Amino acid sequence: MSPAQVPDGSDRGAIILIGGAEEKVHDAEILRRFVKLCGSDRARMVIVPTASETRDKGQRYESVFKSVGVRSVRSLPFETRSDCERDDWLGILREADGVFLTGGNQLRLSTTLGGTSAAKMLRRLNADGVPMAGTSAGAAFLPEHMIALGEEGSTPRGDMVTLAPGLGLTNRVIVDQHFRQRDRLGRLLTALAYNPFAIGVGLDEDTAAFISPDNQLEVVGSGALTIVDPSAVEHSSMDSARKSYPVCLIGVRLHILVDGATFNLETREAVSATAASRR
Amino acid sequence: MSPAQVPDGSDRGAIILIGGAEEKVHDAEILRRFVKLCGSDRARMVIVPTASETRDKGQRYESVFKSVGVRSVRSLPFETRSDCERDDWLGILREADGVFLTGGNQLRLSTTLGGTSAAKMLRRLNADGVPMAGTSAGAAFLPEHMIALGEEGSTPRGDMVTLAPGLGLTNRVIVDQHFRQRDRLGRLLTALAYNPFAIGVGLDEDTAAFISPDNQLEVVGSGALTIVDPSAVEHSSMDSARKSYPVCLIGVRLHILVDGATFNLETREAVSATAASRR
Repeated sequence: MSPAQVPDGSDRGAIILIGGAEEKVHDAEILRRFVKLCGSDRARMVIVPTASETRDKGQRYESVFKSVGVRSVRSLPFETRSDCERDDWLGILREADGVFLTGGNQLRLSTTLGGTSAAKMLRRLNADGVPMAGTSAGAAFLPEHMIALGEEGSTPRGDMVTLAPGLGLTNRVIVDQHFRQRDRLGRLLTALAYNPFAIGVGLDEDTAAFISPDNQLEVVGSGALTIVDPSAVEHSSMDSARKSYPVCLIGVRLHILVDGATFNLETREAVSATAASRR
Repeated sequence: MSPAQVPDGSDRGAIILIGGAEEKVHDAEILRRFVKLCGSDRARMVIVPTASETRDKGQRYESVFKSVGVRSVRSLPFETRSDCERDDWLGILREADGVFLTGGNQLRLSTTLGGTSAAKMLRRLNADGVPMAGTSAGAAFLPEHMIALGEEGSTPRGDMVTLAPGLGLTNRVIVDQHFRQRDRLGRLLTALAYNPFAIGVGLDEDTAAFISPDNQLEVVGSGALTIVDPSAVEHSSMDSARKSYPVCLIGVRLHILVDGATFNLETREAVSATAASRR
């Protein structure tokens, strides 16, 4: 799925990718910022807890969003593909001002939602301006190309990562989450070595990329965001890489960004928080 | 990369996916049909032989296209990523009325072309109406999601296939080639089991899918085309599949189509050659 067609003269909604384990109680800065984009306390928020193994994840997030001031919040626990065709749930989803996808297993999301009416409606809503956030597995699933599985380590290696189609809200980025915590630079580099057209976004825990409708990314949170820009890569040996052997990649640009820094996904320019505040 | 934006009021060019080993001398029906779409003998044809290991593949196809009546045919042997920025070659590519990608290794195509000016121009040309054909690895590379590697066999299994981003001319289909010859149903099913939104197209050798600008697919050639339509899949166990273990997939629709049969990628309706000729 590629991004749904955005109607002329309007903007798609923001896309918020969170690295997992975001602060939910004290500061909750990431969730507060997301709620503000959706219309603050008037927002009708929908939670999609499909990635989770535990049944109470949806309720957990209902409480969290209420605690940051959202009055209307509803969890829609799509568990099977036939759930994704339920008219009553689709009716609630259609009215959402914001959608939040929880963490868990991103293949639960793609196998359950992929190609169903619920997935089509999520794509439509975002194209029509509704902000959409995902944390951990939820973040991995939002773009066109999704890292489904992979191995730890910082060196890219043949067959180190399994890619699968995601929801397709954007194809500019390939996301990896729990980035520093799980040592995932190698698998993100491997994903980009296949085809150096996308931009890699490695999200530490409690750290988010807020992507505006005009493809400006801003970092929010307590950790770092690692941008891997392969646009100037001169060579990738992925076409001849053997399983488990390291891959040669020449000319990758890397940025480590923290709270307040920005990266323009069109021009590929990174700006630190200090410089951004001077603009 | 998702499909480049098609200008209002115009159509994108046809996409022709060939299963490899197409007849080049006697009948050459597939290549003749492709040449006709590009403007017959007046067509300026460009060959992209990047997938090939052998240096003479481009020249080989220059002769083949001349033998079916094309007067202007030029091979552009992009071998490195800096080749893909060469102004002289991009100038020739810009004027093409048709582009043909040879077989070989699809990862040579994605690692060499991905994100470069040459890839952007190919996407632009097709969006502006220029037909684009690929055989074998060339066919695998044209869509958004590309099968890069995989194993033989007809049962889908965990980790049986490696997906990577392709050129992105269409995201409706995931292609596999040399289909019957190399026993690839399992890997195509595996690719679709990750996210049952796309349509699987398994191409036998000397068999092509001609996809029109309005997403009508027609079969041309001596073999069969296997359509795997997962839109009614009720369940996929890919989220819990262990490496090398079979995957449970319930409700796949399968069509085996031969020369003259059609499949509508929008409505997902298959029509046999006999029925199509009666319409």
